[in-house]
Parts: sequence; C-alpha cells; structure tokens
Amino acid sequence: MKNSLQITGPTLMLDEQKCRQNIQFMAEKAKKSHVAFRPHFKTHQSLEIGRWFKEAGVGKITVSSLEMATYFAAEWDDITLAFPVNILEIDGINELAGKINLNLLLESTESAEFLAKHMRAKAGYFLKIDAGYHRTGIQPDNMTMIEGIIEIIEKSEALSFKGFLVHSGHTYTSGSPEEVLTISRSAIHTLKALKLKFKGAYPELTLSLGDTPSCSIADDFTGIDEIRPGNFVFYDLTQYAIGSASINQIAVAMACPVVAIHKERSELVIYGGAVHFSKDSLQTGPEGIIFGRVVENRGNTWGDILPGQVLVKLSQEHGTVKVPAKLINTFHVGQVLYILPVHSCLTANLMKYYMTTEGKNISKWHY
Amino acid sequence: MKNSLQITGPTLMLDEQKCRQNIQFMAEKAKKSHVAFRPHFKTHQSLEIGRWFKEAGVGKITVSSLEMATYFAAEWDDITLAFPVNILEIDGINELAGKINLNLLLESTESAEFLAKHMRAKAGYFLKIDAGYHRTGIQPDNMTMIEGIIEIIEKSEALSFKGFLVHSGHTYTSGSPEEVLTISRSAIHTLKALKLKFKGAYPELTLSLGDTPSCSIADDFTGIDEIRPGNFVFYDLTQYAIGSASINQIAVAMACPVVAIHKERSELVIYGGAVHFSKDSLQTGPEGIIFGRVVENRGNTWGDILPGQVLVKLSQEHGTVKVPAKLINTFHVGQVLYILPVHSCLTANLMKYYMTTEGKNISKWHY
Repeated sequence: MKNSLQITGPTLMLDEQKCRQNIQFMAEKAKKSHVAFRPHFKTHQSLEIGRWFKEAGVGKITVSSLEMATYFAAEWDDITLAFPVNILEIDGINELAGKINLNLLLESTESAEFLAKHMRAKAGYFLKIDAGYHRTGIQPDNMTMIEGIIEIIEKSEALSFKGFLVHSGHTYTSGSPEEVLTISRSAIHTLKALKLKFKGAYPELTLSLGDTPSCSIADDFTGIDEIRPGNFVFYDLTQYAIGSASINQIAVAMACPVVAIHKERSELVIYGGAVHFSKDSLQTGPEGIIFGRVVENRGNTWGDILPGQVLVKLSQEHGTVKVPAKLINTFHVGQVLYILPVHSCLTANLMKYYMTTEGKNISKWHY
Repeated sequence: MKNSLQITGPTLMLDEQKCRQNIQFMAEKAKKSHVAFRPHFKTHQSLEIGRWFKEAGVGKITVSSLEMATYFAAEWDDITLAFPVNILEIDGINELAGKINLNLLLESTESAEFLAKHMRAKAGYFLKIDAGYHRTGIQPDNMTMIEGIIEIIEKSEALSFKGFLVHSGHTYTSGSPEEVLTISRSAIHTLKALKLKFKGAYPELTLSLGDTPSCSIADDFTGIDEIRPGNFVFYDLTQYAIGSASINQIAVAMACPVVAIHKERSELVIYGGAVHFSKDSLQTGPEGIIFGRVVENRGNTWGDILPGQVLVKLSQEHGTVKVPAKLINTFHVGQVLYILPVHSCLTANLMKYYMTTEGKNISKWHY
C-alpha cells in the first residue's frame, strides 16, 4: 500500500498509539504492584516522548549518561544516572546535581573516595549490585565492599545513600518467559536480603529493579520499591523472541525503499543499512542471523509479520531482504517496506527523528 | 599516560599525520598506476578531512547516499553516488544534478525507465556490475540487461553512460592478501571484458573499482580507469586482519574512561558502548568475537596493540575489556584507554566529531 507521508529514505516510523499503550501498560502495572515507576529514557531519547510519560503520571526517570541526563534535565528534575559513575565527568555531575535531584551509581571504593572528596552539590547514590549478569555491580555477598563504600561516603556532606539497584541483563539471553521469571525472582530475592540487612540503619532505602523482560513478564514485585524498564516504550524483535512483547506492541518500524531486486536469489536490496538499523542481530532457528522482519504495509501504518521476508544482511547503507521465491515478482523498485528492528534502542539511537504514523515529526536528542 | 586533552567521555581520536599519510599513499598509488582516484567519503563524512584530499590532488569523490552527496556538494563538484539509484529521491537527485557533476548507479530496467522519464538535469550513470559479491549489480554476462538499460537511457537527453562499476565487498571476508588479489584480479578481468565489448560505441567509458582491501593490496590496476576506496582513510582492525593495513596505519582510536574494575573476572568496564563503537565485530581465533583492541596510551596519542587487552562485549553505553589477570592491579578507575575499532566507518558514523591528537576538533556531517 502507498504511504501518504512521502517516505523517500529510511524513516523510523512510530505508532504513537502503541507507544502510549506500552507506557500506560507499564505505569498501571507499577501502580497495581505498589512500586515506583522510574522508566529508562535511553531507548527513545526524546523530550517529546518523555511528555507522554508525564501524562501517564511519571515524575522521575533513569538515563545512562551524563549527556543524556543533561538533555532531559530541561524537563525532569529527578534523574538516576544508571551507569557506574564516570569520575572524569565530575564537573558536569556537580553542575547537574546543583540543578536537579540526581542519583549516581557506585560499585567501587575508588569511585566512592573520589566522590566523597569532589562532590560539592547534593546527590543521592545507589549501590549497583550484580544479580548474575556479571557486567557491572558488586557481588551481593561482598559486605566488605558494600559497607566500605557506605562508610567512605558517610564522610561526605553532599552524598546520601538511596539503596540498591540491579539490572538483570541476562534476561535478554534467556530462552523463555519462565527463565526470565526465575532470573527476576532471584534478583528480587537478592535485593530483599540486602534490605533486611540495611533497613535498620537506612529505613528509607529503595530497591530498584531494571530490565524490560523482567518488568514485562513478572507480575509480582513484592518487596521491590522501584522498576526502571526502558525498551518497553517501543519493544522490538528481541523482546518478541524472549516472550516479553507481542508483535502488536512493537511501536517502531523502519520504512525503507526497495532499490534493487535480484530474482535469481529471491532478494531485495533496500536503502536501509547498518547506519539505520545498527548491527545488532538475532539468532533464529530456521533463518539464521537476522537484522529485522518485514511487516505488512498498510499505508501509513503496518500490520503482521510477513512470513519468510527477513532482513538478512546489512552493510553501511544497503540492506538485503530475503523473500519467498514465489513472491519475488510481486515487488517493485521504489516500493516501501516496513521492517521491525531487532533492537529498538540502538536503531532509535541512530535515527535523527521519529515520524509518527499520523505524519508528525518527533524530535530527539542531538538533533 | 595522561592525556592533556581532557578526555571525559568516549572520544574518537584522530591521528592527522597517519590519516594524511594514508591519503598520500593511496593518491600516489593511483598516480603510479595511471588510474583516477575517486575516494569514497562515507568513512570520514567530514568536509574538513575532505580538504586533506584536495591538498593531495583529489578532485572527485564517491558517496553512498543523496544526503551525503548534498553535504559534500558544498565543496565538491564531481560526485558519484555509488548506491543503486533510489527513485523515491528523484526530486533531490534532479536538484543536485543541476548544481554539480553527479553520477548515478543503475542495475535494473525499471529504474532506467524511471530515470529516462524523470531526469531533467544532466547526470552520468554507471552500470553496477556484480563481480562476485552478490549484494547488488548486474551479472556481467547478462547482456540483455546491460544493453537493455543502455538502450532505455539513450532516449533520455539528461543521462549519459559513463561506464561500469564494481565493488568487490567479498574481499572483506577473504582469508589472506593472496585471496584479495585473486578477487580483485577477477573483478578487473570482468571489467576489461565489458570494456572490450562496449568501447567501440563508448570510447570514453570508465572502469571503476572499489573496496579498500583490493586497492590497498593490489599494485597492478592495468586496464582499470578509476579506484574508489574509502575505509583506507582511517583503516581499522578488520583491514588489519585481512592484511590490507598495518597497525601503524590505523588513524582513529576511541578514548574511553575506565568506570569499573572487576578483578575476579580480570575485566574492566569502560564508558564506551554500542552507541560509540557500533556492534560490528571480528571473529578471531583465540579470543572469539571482539569489538576492539586496546593500544598503548602514549598521552595524546597511541602505540602498539597491548596483547590480551580486548573489547569483548558491548551494550548501549558499557564496554567490557578483558585484560590479562596478572595486569589487573595496574588499572585504575578514571584511567583512559585507547581502543582501535573493528570497523571505522560505522564507528565514525556514530560519533559527533573527531578530536585530533593535537587537540583540534574536526567537524562532521550532521553536527
């Protein structure tokens, strides 16, 4: 079908209704579970989309860099920078902490010593706990480190201990919703044990849980105080493969023009490459490694997955889409394909703006 | 060693001297081989770096999108848009072709029919030939297609046939310099056969050869009229693995702060992730899949590869660097690592600017 929005090159289409439903779904879930909702904004990177969260009652957010925090500080005054504090950015951290409620992340005595010495503006800090992902964080049984950091920081007038934070990123490689639940239950268990130990001294301490698969699939957050999912705002094929989202919940699709057709190989070449989708891929059973899936073109919006129409190769600007041989004659050069991305965070990061299915331009960070 | 340039976050460092030497090396090789040099500018995407090419005598360039052609048209008046023509961009193509000498790429009768009908401004076109990479292009023995397109376009006043163009992208997956040479010789052979057939009718026709591995390794371009390498301006670990560059020729390195140290795993966590490096990876023998290699920090510049210090994992903002266990105690939080990227084109595309080792900011497209 023809798109009336005059797509001429790779365009990241955003279904505002689906996106707002995803926000509403997670906001309601948090409310029902009596946990605070501090969504991660690294996925959409947009003040405009941020306002949709405000409309859903959200008042505080998470980001993954000081630069991003500074961008969002224009409209948000309570931000957790969920990244091990980068001490080289101390000047910018002090500046931002002077303006808003800023929370930092600590996981080493070295960084704690540095902050105790150099933080001038008031800020909170979370201890990053490794709940099994083994990317960052303190081992939950490493009391020497946990108590050591708290003790170092107590010398500081500027910093106050806010609680424990986990990001169970290993849910992303889990094979099933059940496995996600096992991981998130274990993370919750870990966090609760820490609270039990420290709530005497810090009765206000917060337990904060990240990751979209856990927050999408789990229904019981008893004992947790805050959730920080990010990707759920758009979802993507990775979340669909994990079982944390349905195809209908995926709120972004890349619109790409067909520029060449190779009948002998049942392949289409699209304008849409690694600089649009990112090189993140998904290992699938029958199709091997894929970078996206073509969905039905319904004019300005899209529908179901089209079986066997798969983005199988990306170079800088080119994408190669495999299609079923019996359908190859139905395509034409200049046609626009809608393609669901494998990892919407990285795809959105590469694009300059979103175009809603209603034809509205949504601005982003950097542009 | 300490960098005096005040690195606080991931910064793409550029060694101007190495970069200019790479440009000089390729310009001289082209001159010696009596072929025109039309470098691909998709790698650096910078008008400022473009001027270094002008100083080396370059007068015409290659790009991979209309958007990029429009950016470079501010200072370049002879541009080949080496991407199968995207007919949805016809208005922009006509506009640009009215201002500069623009060459387009054709590989289908559908696109040829469209251009014959809609091109108003004068432009050249190349026929894209598939020399074995099987991404795009016409099979070299498909005379029906080749002659068909030429015949269609002859009806057009605006377009003129310029010649045949190949990009042997399969050199990128070749195992050795010898294999690269075999591939490039075969591409040259294919092109020469086409010239022989068409030079009677088109005595001016140009044979154009792309890809950095071929242009770096081959010394004999007899019969070819033009080379279009791009990546060589910076090179990267992929080119090093192929054998088309030495480590000393790699002209960019990402400077990344260490934000956490995990001694028990001999791992460093750096501020530097998929949004800085891209997710392009390299399969290596002993280390598996890698995203970069740490090189010696020599203050504002860098030295040799540090054995066993490898970027093994990337998430959005985090990178994980494996280091030898015996060295783990030599690192500290707040230290800056220099890391050579796997694929400099995609890395450069993600970054907002370059910082030269002399401390100069080099601007880029989009920013």
